[in-house]
Amino acid sequence: MTTPLAEPRAMARARELGLSVLGTTSPNPAVGAVILDSAGTPVGEGATAPPGGPHAEVTALAQAGERARGGTAVVTLEPCAHTGRTGPCADALIAAGVVRVVIAVPEPTELAGGGADRLRAAGIAVELGVERAEAEDGALAPWLTGVREHRPFVVWKVAATLDGRVAAADGSSRWITGEQARAAVHRLRATCDAVVVGSGTAVTDDPQLTVRDADGRTTGRQPLRVVVDRRGRLAPTARVLDDAAPTHVSRAGTPAELMAELFDRDVRRVLLEGGPTLAAAFLRAGLVDEAVVHLAPTLLGAGPSLVGDLGISTMAGALSFRIVDLLPMGGDVQIRLRPTRHTGGHQHTDGGS
Amino acid sequence: MTTPLAEPRAMARARELGLSVLGTTSPNPAVGAVILDSAGTPVGEGATAPPGGPHAEVTALAQAGERARGGTAVVTLEPCAHTGRTGPCADALIAAGVVRVVIAVPEPTELAGGGADRLRAAGIAVELGVERAEAEDGALAPWLTGVREHRPFVVWKVAATLDGRVAAADGSSRWITGEQARAAVHRLRATCDAVVVGSGTAVTDDPQLTVRDADGRTTGRQPLRVVVDRRGRLAPTARVLDDAAPTHVSRAGTPAELMAELFDRDVRRVLLEGGPTLAAAFLRAGLVDEAVVHLAPTLLGAGPSLVGDLGISTMAGALSFRIVDLLPMGGDVQIRLRPTRHTGGHQHTDGGS
Ligand SMILES: NC(=O)c1ccc[n+]([C@@H]2O[C@H](COP(=O)([O-])OP(=O)(O)OC[C@H]3O[C@@H](n4cnc5c(N)ncnc54)[C@H](OP(=O)(O)O)[C@@H]3O)[C@@H](O)[C@H]2O)c1
Ligand SMILES: NC(=O)c1ccc[n+]([C@@H]2O[C@H](COP(=O)([O-])OP(=O)(O)OC[C@H]3O[C@@H](n4cnc5c(N)ncnc54)[C@H](OP(=O)(O)O)[C@@H]3O)[C@@H](O)[C@H]2O)c1
Repeated sequence: MTTPLAEPRAMARARELGLSVLGTTSPNPAVGAVILDSAGTPVGEGATAPPGGPHAEVTALAQAGERARGGTAVVTLEPCAHTGRTGPCADALIAAGVVRVVIAVPEPTELAGGGADRLRAAGIAVELGVERAEAEDGALAPWLTGVREHRPFVVWKVAATLDGRVAAADGSSRWITGEQARAAVHRLRATCDAVVVGSGTAVTDDPQLTVRDADGRTTGRQPLRVVVDRRGRLAPTARVLDDAAPTHVSRAGTPAELMAELFDRDVRRVLLEGGPTLAAAFLRAGLVDEAVVHLAPTLLGAGPSLVGDLGISTMAGALSFRIVDLLPMGGDVQIRLRPTRHTGGHQHTDGGS
Repeated sequence: MTTPLAEPRAMARARELGLSVLGTTSPNPAVGAVILDSAGTPVGEGATAPPGGPHAEVTALAQAGERARGGTAVVTLEPCAHTGRTGPCADALIAAGVVRVVIAVPEPTELAGGGADRLRAAGIAVELGVERAEAEDGALAPWLTGVREHRPFVVWKVAATLDGRVAAADGSSRWITGEQARAAVHRLRATCDAVVVGSGTAVTDDPQLTVRDADGRTTGRQPLRVVVDRRGRLAPTARVLDDAAPTHVSRAGTPAELMAELFDRDVRRVLLEGGPTLAAAFLRAGLVDEAVVHLAPTLLGAGPSLVGDLGISTMAGALSFRIVDLLPMGGDVQIRLRPTRHTGGHQHTDGGS
């Protein structure tokens, strides 16, 4: 018999598996799956492969082989019932002989829906909605935002001093934070489909915007580099235009327009890396879903602020967030936040978006 | 026999006892003492009483009574050998029959020094410098700063938004942080001998600067309220001038001058509560020993900054701190910091100041 903790543990692991492929699956969801044998022992695990590759369940079932028979599949998203580039996962689970499927998030699209029904029709016990909020808040958030709002999920990352400065008065901004925080930014970039800056940052800092290791070497899959440069200020020699990664120079007039452009390019998770002007435009448009703030324990007393004018003049009008986690990082601090309300755009109704 | 952990545990407790009376003992040091009997069991504890009252060791010995005989005294500061308002503590320890005295910090003043020697001369085993840095960094820091630098220890407290704003564009500053952080400020005030603001804060916010409980009632001993108002802008109706606590309106031209004034009034620990202009003056003068920053997870995009101009224009010139602790506080975050270098004034040589 399954031990009482086997399924929750498997679900937590399935979420981890999903997170491990975040940034490599778009436009598909980053799903995680774990197969338990009839005794509750994990015998297979999988995560969504890049587009065209196998879904999480298929990889997990292949690993489990005959041990899946009589067992349980634990997945973060309802297995699909449609034949896309790969066959329907529901049929694969039926063929493998699992007797129980535990699902966190029900499939929200018509096209892929019906998986749970198909499993039940085959006599399989299906539990839907298990630890749903955690899964929605995790690796599935970008894809769900895409399904629900037809736009990418936006993570705004900023490094600032204690007094909220993102550069010194003379414009120098290297380096505000220490090595550990900077390495974390590279890991964060790797989880995103695109990295976005405004022309101001591109011109002032001439950043390369690639994912690099501690030795400065470009590593792995590179997110799309995006510069919003409506007046054509970007020099042809800018480092962001080198061939280390693909680049899109956009003339989109508003953040919403830019998001639509990127969504059409299959981007589901965007890292907004600055600067204050573009960040303010996104915040005013209600288009920041998560903020990652790296705070250095330093004071400058002058220099550009973390965020430009938001059109807010009273304390009561402040944009408010809730802290999701707080992490010492080298000598710095990382604060991850989710908005509790937006100035512009629609109101979000759950913490997951 | 003493258990191996009895003394370290007693020393940690002695430091706690010292901290529990911080803000009530100036100009005397906030000392803590624990008496262990011959088996290593704590049988008495004490902390410095307000000026004129008994020293920590005397209270602890009184509590221990006959059980002190053959036992150990654990104290944060070397027992005094001089007769001040109370008799010498060294003699009290000798009379009580303790056989061992464990001391964190050697007495730095000529006047009170010689306690350890007198104990040794009486045949008592004395250990000096045990967990000294921890004790120097704790409740003894203000008094040690006074002894070494003839000025009070300065704690700068500020509440700011994530983008480093201490008020909104319209000047409103109530409330940046939530109830828990505000309650912590009242507890912090209670540990200080004086609370200092500039005329700007006094005029704009009209704060009362008293220690109050959750219901807004003034509680316990009140620190001296200080307004630095060089141009006489403070209205006679200002709340800081009410009779809830003593108030000093100063015309001191510089932070150093102000510190000298307060030192002469027996102030050893100052809470600098703002605003940005006065904070910048203190930071430039190298007169901030600790910073307590309450960060709210909000953004304003405009409004006065946490700290005024520091005369710094490059990233390399940033004032740097090291984070001492990081604490979620309600929905906010408390960051406690110590400077790693000062712009103005002398260089501090240890982490304790
Ligand atoms: N510490 C950090 O984390 C960090 C990160 C980034 C930048 N920075 C610093 O920030 C400074 C640059 O600040 P910045 O504000 O000029 O940079 P920015 O926000 O990257 O660029 C601003 C420019 O973006 C363009 N833009 C495109 N779409 C826009 C829209 N919808 N709304 C508004 N503007 C839009 C505008 O120019 P066009 O009209 O020409 O398109 C605008 O002038 C530099 O000192 C840099 O070092 C720091
Ligand atoms: N969020 C917080 O934690 C917090 C705390 C405090 C204040 N605030 C906000 O800060 C704003 C007030 O800012 P502020 O900068 O005007 O306040 P401030 O720093 O309290 O007062 C500035 C004034 O202090 C006087 N001062 C005395 N000695 C000085 C010295 N050595 N160097 C420089 N100035 C000296 C000066 O006026 P004289 O020349 O007339 O002496 C100066 O104009 C308000 O909006 C308030 O709400 C926020």
